[in-house]
Amino acid sequence: MSDFLLPRLQALEPYVPGEQPQGRSFIKLNTNESPFPPSPRVLEALSREKIAQLNLYPDPLAYELRKAIAAEYGLAPEQVFVGNGSDEVLGFAFLAYGDNAHPVTIPEISYGFYKVFAQLFGIAPTVIPLNADFTLPVEKFLATGTSVVLANPNAPTALALPLQDIERIVQTNAGHVVLIDEAYIDFGGESALPLLEKYPNLLIVRTYSKSRSLAGGRLGYALGNQPLIEDLERVKSSFHPYSINSLTMAAGIQAMKDKGYFAACLEDIIRQRQEMAKALKALDFKMTDSATNFLFASPPGMSGQDYYQRLKERGILVRYLSHPKLESYVRITIGTKAQMEQLIAETKEILKEVQP
Amino acid sequence: MSDFLLPRLQALEPYVPGEQPQGRSFIKLNTNESPFPPSPRVLEALSREKIAQLNLYPDPLAYELRKAIAAEYGLAPEQVFVGNGSDEVLGFAFLAYGDNAHPVTIPEISYGFYKVFAQLFGIAPTVIPLNADFTLPVEKFLATGTSVVLANPNAPTALALPLQDIERIVQTNAGHVVLIDEAYIDFGGESALPLLEKYPNLLIVRTYSKSRSLAGGRLGYALGNQPLIEDLERVKSSFHPYSINSLTMAAGIQAMKDKGYFAACLEDIIRQRQEMAKALKALDFKMTDSATNFLFASPPGMSGQDYYQRLKERGILVRYLSHPKLESYVRITIGTKAQMEQLIAETKEILKEVQP
Repeated sequence: MSDFLLPRLQALEPYVPGEQPQGRSFIKLNTNESPFPPSPRVLEALSREKIAQLNLYPDPLAYELRKAIAAEYGLAPEQVFVGNGSDEVLGFAFLAYGDNAHPVTIPEISYGFYKVFAQLFGIAPTVIPLNADFTLPVEKFLATGTSVVLANPNAPTALALPLQDIERIVQTNAGHVVLIDEAYIDFGGESALPLLEKYPNLLIVRTYSKSRSLAGGRLGYALGNQPLIEDLERVKSSFHPYSINSLTMAAGIQAMKDKGYFAACLEDIIRQRQEMAKALKALDFKMTDSATNFLFASPPGMSGQDYYQRLKERGILVRYLSHPKLESYVRITIGTKAQMEQLIAETKEILKEVQP
Repeated sequence: MSDFLLPRLQALEPYVPGEQPQGRSFIKLNTNESPFPPSPRVLEALSREKIAQLNLYPDPLAYELRKAIAAEYGLAPEQVFVGNGSDEVLGFAFLAYGDNAHPVTIPEISYGFYKVFAQLFGIAPTVIPLNADFTLPVEKFLATGTSVVLANPNAPTALALPLQDIERIVQTNAGHVVLIDEAYIDFGGESALPLLEKYPNLLIVRTYSKSRSLAGGRLGYALGNQPLIEDLERVKSSFHPYSINSLTMAAGIQAMKDKGYFAACLEDIIRQRQEMAKALKALDFKMTDSATNFLFASPPGMSGQDYYQRLKERGILVRYLSHPKLESYVRITIGTKAQMEQLIAETKEILKEVQP
């Protein structure tokens, strides 16, 4: 770090992404990727001809992509914003609505990036601890007098919030933007989509990285009423009008249109989640009721870090989260049936080691 | 725009990118893209197998890409930062070094985005007018007491600044970052690269969008000493650690390694530039001495906007820049030999219309 860097940025703690090992091949259950490749229609769309046109700029309005997303959700393209991963979409939203005079309320345990965005843009966050059972203390998010950012379902707790609670939060914070990060909504829980008609302050953010098998493509989007979408477009046009590359744009259109493949992948992941939850409970793991593509699970007789380390030695990566309130837990991505079976087999070996 | 948007952002004027027509096919000479497809090695790298792995996150450190870029310039990977287009790299630099207490000095006529970044992040810019002949008034950029951002060669003026002038600017602003945007340096002018060894405050920004035929891939980079690169990594890790998608990363490695293709494309573009400058001068156009892949040219007997409009009606897009000091000029991207011949032919017809 140089002496030139702004003092505010010298002091911040950047987000630490999950390990992305480039060498040895692990079974990767640590960053909530889909175990399935993208739709065959994505492979078709990224043709030789398309790649040969990379010398030309992409459409800065991303109109065809926004149209495809809008069609899926019964919205107009003007109600859809697209960004280079939902991280960029979230970043633009923090930048659009927060500064040192415009604070934001966030849960203490949620996607770790919310706090980082707040620091980056000099926003004072009000951080609300979760209840002891990891549920959200809804009352504390009502009429906050600030913007609100929530993930539903939440990560890493895997828990979904009922729609009526979301609505109370959106309604009682009518003077501020309420952002619901629905990165995992395709795997469970109730989307806030039906509320869009009634609430001009509601912004929903989603990603192609989980349920659409495009983490490597970087594509996220926001759904909201036109004025909010225009705000995000305004920030994007002042930061990076061409933030989505041509290939990802083409991939995103096809991944959205291939409803059959999408449904089949989801079905498989949800089935694996149920089976794995059952298997781990039989091994005395504690866990929350997951509405996501991962389990938030606490192994018997060892810390989360210990279990993480032992799995890593056996070639399986899960996510260990270094927060005092999470130290008995790990976050395990749902993979293929074969990967899940190997996880269970290795876990049984580990349990023999720690419970002799 | 909503009432929720921060007042500062309600007031800003977003950047207006050049037209990217998605329907009717124009000869596109308006956004300084390369007329050539990316290297054949890029097409090879973006294989079916690679595309099928898009379900996995890219390497957030982009290590192999940084290594390839570093090797090309005789630097270490730790002296290379990569971003989603040079716009993102520039944006991160403005965010890292500027705020309302840390101003920046920029030229009045240059890449239009510099002013927009300043507005976006609440940075007060000192805007220095160019000389009447569009050269840079170097003295006014010495010992500014602020950060400095300059494009070299400059756009849309196409003029390069001698290395000794760059060095004086970097040296006399030792207490602040001096960012040299070398988006067009492969086409002419002297790079500031040799100065990196001596000056810890020098940051060089480049793009794959022009000379490397990857505008559609979105890839830019910064070269500098390790502390500055760490600053940018810190901002990136606090905004979007995965900002470069897997396919662009693979494309960027191969586009950098294929030196033969790169050199052949450059040679052709520079030859076309020379021939087109000669042809337009023979038609009484005025123009600057271009060190870029475009001409900054003033047609005889009509305004820049008039010439732009008449070319557009004939299926050729050039860039008209709506600034009072530029109203007699257009910016014309150097295309293929066939495109340039058509431009000259249509221009002769237009000149007959306006000079009967």
